[in-house]
Amino acid sequence: MTRLVLKFGGTSMGDLDRIRRAARIVAAEYNAGRRVAVVVSAMAGKTNELVAWTDGAGRPAQGIDPTDDEYDAVVASGEQVTAGLLALTLRNMGLRARSWMGWQIPIITDDQHGKARIIDIPGEALGLAVDGGEIAVVPGFQGVTAGGRITTLGRGGSDTSAVAVAAALNCPCDIYTDVDGVYTTDPRIESRARRLERISYEEMLEMASLGAKVLQTRSVELAMAKKVPLRVLSSFIEPDDQGVLPDKGGTLICDEEEIVEKRIVSGVTMSRDEARITLLGLDDRTDAPADVFTRLAEAGVNVDMIVQSQSRTEGAVNLTFTTGRRDATRAAELMRAAQTDIGFQEIRLDEDVAKVSVVGVGMRSHAGVAQTMFRALADKGIKFQAISTSEIKISVLIDAAYAELAVRALHSAYGLEAV
Amino acid sequence: MTRLVLKFGGTSMGDLDRIRRAARIVAAEYNAGRRVAVVVSAMAGKTNELVAWTDGAGRPAQGIDPTDDEYDAVVASGEQVTAGLLALTLRNMGLRARSWMGWQIPIITDDQHGKARIIDIPGEALGLAVDGGEIAVVPGFQGVTAGGRITTLGRGGSDTSAVAVAAALNCPCDIYTDVDGVYTTDPRIESRARRLERISYEEMLEMASLGAKVLQTRSVELAMAKKVPLRVLSSFIEPDDQGVLPDKGGTLICDEEEIVEKRIVSGVTMSRDEARITLLGLDDRTDAPADVFTRLAEAGVNVDMIVQSQSRTEGAVNLTFTTGRRDATRAAELMRAAQTDIGFQEIRLDEDVAKVSVVGVGMRSHAGVAQTMFRALADKGIKFQAISTSEIKISVLIDAAYAELAVRALHSAYGLEAV
Repeated sequence: MTRLVLKFGGTSMGDLDRIRRAARIVAAEYNAGRRVAVVVSAMAGKTNELVAWTDGAGRPAQGIDPTDDEYDAVVASGEQVTAGLLALTLRNMGLRARSWMGWQIPIITDDQHGKARIIDIPGEALGLAVDGGEIAVVPGFQGVTAGGRITTLGRGGSDTSAVAVAAALNCPCDIYTDVDGVYTTDPRIESRARRLERISYEEMLEMASLGAKVLQTRSVELAMAKKVPLRVLSSFIEPDDQGVLPDKGGTLICDEEEIVEKRIVSGVTMSRDEARITLLGLDDRTDAPADVFTRLAEAGVNVDMIVQSQSRTEGAVNLTFTTGRRDATRAAELMRAAQTDIGFQEIRLDEDVAKVSVVGVGMRSHAGVAQTMFRALADKGIKFQAISTSEIKISVLIDAAYAELAVRALHSAYGLEAV
Repeated sequence: MTRLVLKFGGTSMGDLDRIRRAARIVAAEYNAGRRVAVVVSAMAGKTNELVAWTDGAGRPAQGIDPTDDEYDAVVASGEQVTAGLLALTLRNMGLRARSWMGWQIPIITDDQHGKARIIDIPGEALGLAVDGGEIAVVPGFQGVTAGGRITTLGRGGSDTSAVAVAAALNCPCDIYTDVDGVYTTDPRIESRARRLERISYEEMLEMASLGAKVLQTRSVELAMAKKVPLRVLSSFIEPDDQGVLPDKGGTLICDEEEIVEKRIVSGVTMSRDEARITLLGLDDRTDAPADVFTRLAEAGVNVDMIVQSQSRTEGAVNLTFTTGRRDATRAAELMRAAQTDIGFQEIRLDEDVAKVSVVGVGMRSHAGVAQTMFRALADKGIKFQAISTSEIKISVLIDAAYAELAVRALHSAYGLEAV
């Protein structure tokens, strides 16, 4: 008997009909001979409702323990409900099932309430129950501190819960979502986008952090660290009349070595969540950039791309950097407030920018990837304002108006429609 | 420092405004020097929603563990939410507070899921926290088995939770409700009804089981067994501008010995949840009534009053009994199905009946209580169809049309408007 973890998100738990649909998928896996644990999110919208209530209850007064332990106690209840309902639904179908709350397994986390990290999942009891033929239903997103307080893992944490449970049970993890896999690019932008049968953990991490919203980044990191094979697939598949699942399709996220057909580039991503800030006429002291980025780091502003260029002013440079759009106004205000101390003449904030990236482990061994990218953009008359690279990706910052055009041009330049 | 348990029901937890109102009452008690634990119900309507979902998920299939453990896991989440929200609200007011789930204290129950009974509450940790100045917020209605599964105590169980926590903390319990105490009778029927300052546990038990819906019967039984002074009072009282509560009023439920001014009768209650079944021409065998009541008991039908009278038929009697209205149709069908075996000629079911009762510990030592009752009813031309008595109550079954008239007549006959 092989074990398998299945994970269903909030849309798949949205009402009793959707829960029954998920239960049929679980039953099909069980009846195909697998021993199954299921990780579930709260009903779609429910977590937002609970969070709004905790907001309405107000922030603790000065001097009162300001940790988010009670936020967690409230918000974790959403997954408790769906876990119980799915267990009931499975029993109704004649299967043995039970819910395992975070504190019952236990899923032990640190005490960073609201954004806790999983420390350990003692998987023995859970594994025994699962191997004995009982379907374990585990609420995602929640855990418990060593001191016995309820924690949550932060938004999207149910993916991480699922991977952690799979690691504890030493088995693969199927993530059911509202898309049927990971694509070479966003099909809403490029209709010729193709579903990838396999993608490496590293590539998926770059894709996830660059704007492909299929999986939470932490869940992919954890899967890579624990070597959990992760499959992303559609929750809309239906078992046939005999209760047998069709070919599941989806995308397998796995070690690079397990991917036989190597591609140079696996995908093209695009993010509009970018803003560009330029400090014009910055004093050409060697410590001026350090001064700028220290101030930003201390304020918790993440900086992505950095470009320094000559200024028209003698003894000065221009410094351009990008941040997430959410942080942009704050970062600009921070700079303005320190204008005299840092020493620059003018600041510009531009939110009409987009970041387009190509990702692929093949870049490690193939030259010419960047050259293809720049030629494809130049052929369409697209100028880039900044560049950043890693071992397996190249990103360019461009005028937002050209974002979709750039994605299609790159998709075609790397031949991704034929993957 | 004296300890105090406060309990707020679903209406008092109905929204954030109501939760803030409850928090102001808690703060007033705390600031008056008490050390406080609070027991809360789920938001009004929430438990019904959760129960409806578990109903929708369906009953377990044949052969699958049919216990209600998953029902409990789902339904207990409602109180988890309000406990967290009240703790947050108290912190927002500058007080130290935290929630204590049933499994955290723990409130240990048996494993009769859906209607569990509390076995033990180890109160040491809770008592230490409370004495240390932290307000403990405890979700009502829920507990945990020795094996670590979530249980619920059945509808209305939060009153019982509150009394059990008070017993564990060895302190009194204030139950905040939408009425301001226990009345000599229902003020909607008799406008001259008076609030009782004190009532004994025994009287309250009779009143509760006879239709005065102020408190759940089990909570009163537990308070009596554990000698927990119980106060019923209005959740609409408001601390003044200095945060001081006005005279709390309400009704104290306590030992008979602590009630100085003895009354013969404390209250008049009325219940329409009654049905009368008459078997006409029942064989005058000595074992015929036993046959009837054994069949009813085996079907789980509770019988209240019983009257046997002569039949016009030679060698036969008429047997009349009452049941709760919910069970009446089923009881009648049960009798019809066994008509030949039991041996009777005809069955009549009458749901147009009401039970009117007078309750008072003074009956133990005073004669003439029944005489006053029968004269008062006779004066109004009200006939009674059956009677039942206990040491401290007399109940009569009458035509439902006369129920309110009977209540007013008895209220006046015992002089209750002057209590």
